[in-house]
Amino acid sequence: MYRLHIANKHYSSWSLRPWVLMRELGIAFDEQLSPFEPDSSWTRFRDFSPTGLVPCLVDDEQVVWESLAIVEYLAERHPGVWPSDGAARAWARSASAEMHAGFSALRSQCPMSCGVRVRMARLDDALLGNLARLEELWQQGLARFGGPFLAGEAFSAVDAFFAPVAFRVQSFGLPLGEASTAYVERLLALPAMQQWYAEALAEPWIDPQHEQEVEACGSVLADYRTPERD
Amino acid sequence: MYRLHIANKHYSSWSLRPWVLMRELGIAFDEQLSPFEPDSSWTRFRDFSPTGLVPCLVDDEQVVWESLAIVEYLAERHPGVWPSDGAARAWARSASAEMHAGFSALRSQCPMSCGVRVRMARLDDALLGNLARLEELWQQGLARFGGPFLAGEAFSAVDAFFAPVAFRVQSFGLPLGEASTAYVERLLALPAMQQWYAEALAEPWIDPQHEQEVEACGSVLADYRTPERD
Ligand SMILES: N[C@@H](CCC(=O)N[C@@H](CS)C(=O)NCC(=O)O)C(=O)O
Ligand SMILES: N[C@@H](CCC(=O)N[C@@H](CS)C(=O)NCC(=O)O)C(=O)O
Repeated sequence: MYRLHIANKHYSSWSLRPWVLMRELGIAFDEQLSPFEPDSSWTRFRDFSPTGLVPCLVDDEQVVWESLAIVEYLAERHPGVWPSDGAARAWARSASAEMHAGFSALRSQCPMSCGVRVRMARLDDALLGNLARLEELWQQGLARFGGPFLAGEAFSAVDAFFAPVAFRVQSFGLPLGEASTAYVERLLALPAMQQWYAEALAEPWIDPQHEQEVEACGSVLADYRTPERD
Repeated sequence: MYRLHIANKHYSSWSLRPWVLMRELGIAFDEQLSPFEPDSSWTRFRDFSPTGLVPCLVDDEQVVWESLAIVEYLAERHPGVWPSDGAARAWARSASAEMHAGFSALRSQCPMSCGVRVRMARLDDALLGNLARLEELWQQGLARFGGPFLAGEAFSAVDAFFAPVAFRVQSFGLPLGEASTAYVERLLALPAMQQWYAEALAEPWIDPQHEQEVEACGSVLADYRTPERD
């Protein structure tokens, strides 16, 4: 049985990627959640992850770190991780690698924080540039491969790579066109996304650093997490 | 025939990765070099690359962007891109993905600039942390898979992903242990690396922004580029 190391569902966008992929494809795994702790997560995570980062997949003796490497490891062993059509697969890999190293304004200015709703103080040019590229990319994928998912009929790794964006759009009210908004709703409605979201809301941990990052974004309009805080 | 879009060999570390891989594996391609131009490269590169970034591989109708996606595209078509041993392959993909999204201090503080030699003004904690992780990773690969390359006997995509580090170590005199230094020398001695280096030195273009980044690193001790400048 695979073991997948992740961090808080409320905050950890990279953890979400392989998690939602495996759940949607029905690939069984043991979830091992290690919550963030101020200033110590990196060193604690080193106990199981060579980089001190999550996600990290353990398959018996084999340790696979980095979300994109985990996806390729699974692709060698399970159908449906990437689309079977060659052109769709090349596109999906390009788009996933672009997310892996890019969209830095979106990733840093809109930190994933599933349960909150925030009115952004401002959308700067870097963020608007990221959103414009996101629109372009998604529209291309949806149009070219026929939808309803980015690389065709079935949910695949490229959708998993953009799954955290769906939570970000929801939390920060990011402006997107009609087709992209419908795609975001499709992602949010997936059983695996609903499960992740429900479990994120129920988490007992509050990480001060992540909270500060969210508060720096603008005004918090709502917080749907269930364990009440003062 | 593949077409590979790249930028200046003197500066473009991402371009080097698929280029050196294809040359070392004997995969034929047309090289299409578009030099950086102040403030306009991104828009000009959009003519052929969806992200406005290089490298970008064109195979007839198929456009593949992002170095890691290019590598996977080639891996489906040519032997030797990744190691054939499963454990070595999983490790190589993890290490390559780690480079793709990580080592940001090394990438930003030591910008690739093949022909110059620089005495770094200082090595800050972030950079030293990157170098420590690099040592750990390389030593693990070299020991576990027997060398002389990172994932075993043959040069593969993971070596290509770290090839720009070899030029950075050479240019900035970065301190590394014995095994890592020997590995850097092995990379620099590869025929494809020698060709890239020679062609980098002979390039006529000087990009002010890249030059400024290098000058900000410390004192320039030497510049081996052949077209004389004032
Ligand atoms: N490139 C990595 C990124 C992983 C990453 O940054 N993970 C974050 C959580 S989402 C982490 O582990 N941070 C550790 C910490 O903040 O202590 C991947 O794709 O897996
Ligand atoms: N994640 C991308 C990074 C590509 C990248 O950043 N390329 C740089 C050159 S090394 C670029 O094209 N910059 C465009 C510009 O500066 O105008 C990849 O792996 O291919």
